[in-house]
Amino acid sequence: MAARLYDLELSGNCYKVRLLSALVGVPLEIIPVDFLAGAHKQPPLSDLNPFREIPIFEDGALALRDSQAILIYIARKWGGEDWLPADPAGLAQVSQWLMVAENELARGPNDARLHDKFGYTLDVALARSKSARILALMEQHLAHEKWLALARPTIADIACMPYVALGHEGGVPLDPYPAVAAWVDRVKALPGFVGMPAI
Amino acid sequence: MAARLYDLELSGNCYKVRLLSALVGVPLEIIPVDFLAGAHKQPPLSDLNPFREIPIFEDGALALRDSQAILIYIARKWGGEDWLPADPAGLAQVSQWLMVAENELARGPNDARLHDKFGYTLDVALARSKSARILALMEQHLAHEKWLALARPTIADIACMPYVALGHEGGVPLDPYPAVAAWVDRVKALPGFVGMPAI
Repeated sequence: MAARLYDLELSGNCYKVRLLSALVGVPLEIIPVDFLAGAHKQPPLSDLNPFREIPIFEDGALALRDSQAILIYIARKWGGEDWLPADPAGLAQVSQWLMVAENELARGPNDARLHDKFGYTLDVALARSKSARILALMEQHLAHEKWLALARPTIADIACMPYVALGHEGGVPLDPYPAVAAWVDRVKALPGFVGMPAI
Repeated sequence: MAARLYDLELSGNCYKVRLLSALVGVPLEIIPVDFLAGAHKQPPLSDLNPFREIPIFEDGALALRDSQAILIYIARKWGGEDWLPADPAGLAQVSQWLMVAENELARGPNDARLHDKFGYTLDVALARSKSARILALMEQHLAHEKWLALARPTIADIACMPYVALGHEGGVPLDPYPAVAAWVDRVKALPGFVGMPAI
């Protein structure tokens, strides 16, 4: 039985899972969730994920929440050492950037897009200011590195790219960050790449 | 040469690293950082971590930022399978909670404490509301589980405990969450446990 993704097409977090699955070659059963109707807040989905969020990933009896944790699972189960190494230093260096996706990018371009595109009530000026900080850090890093970690594509790139590339939907375009924009283009050129609306 | 931690005693994120090192039995050279003077924002520390934050962890030529990534490194290098398993499902199930430490707890009790104890300008009502949401989810989980993941102590617990236990310093006491409070006590009873001020 194929693994299942409870999915929303416009969610960058769901997209990460679709993207890595495509790159690794893992067949996914995609189950669209009626997000506007709040299907993720009710059983059976709220039983699978008490946090009442998507994506949710099911593989047999295992149900996982959180897009970064799902990337870790897919990479480790089906991706060999390519997308997430097992050695302590490599694993930690990739993980540093998974944490950027979970923290700085969530509080930055993701929040800004939630405000502008989906009408969430939040401090969008703060989200844009946090976006500027993390994008400047990424620009500095990517000015002399092709990939976020280990000098090769890893789930660090897959975790961080979507909300960076969707920033323009939250008033955070990449024009001031040419090295970041070039990195987004490198991710888009990976064999097997799939896009989403606005990427 | 012992691994080095650039440290601030009152930082819950630095404390996590001290705690896991004590539990695993890894000797650490602790280097106190003059945080008030902004030593972390200047060379040599800003070269080790361009994010200009602490903790920073050095092991030989490797420098790591982000407390969760440092926990992953210590667990994988010195902790065998005990604190962080290598199999896909175990690794992902622990990682789900590392992401809670990085996201929900950072935006919740950590932000509330930064406001109350350290005078940061931020929306403390929002931080308390986010605290209530994640603590209710943890209460629900810990009402029938002794540990956050895998039915045993892992770095999930080490990553999440500090800012939960420090919540009272940000107006987020644990009185409404008896199962969470009991879990904090279980972490405190682990062999080799070390505390920090207010824990």
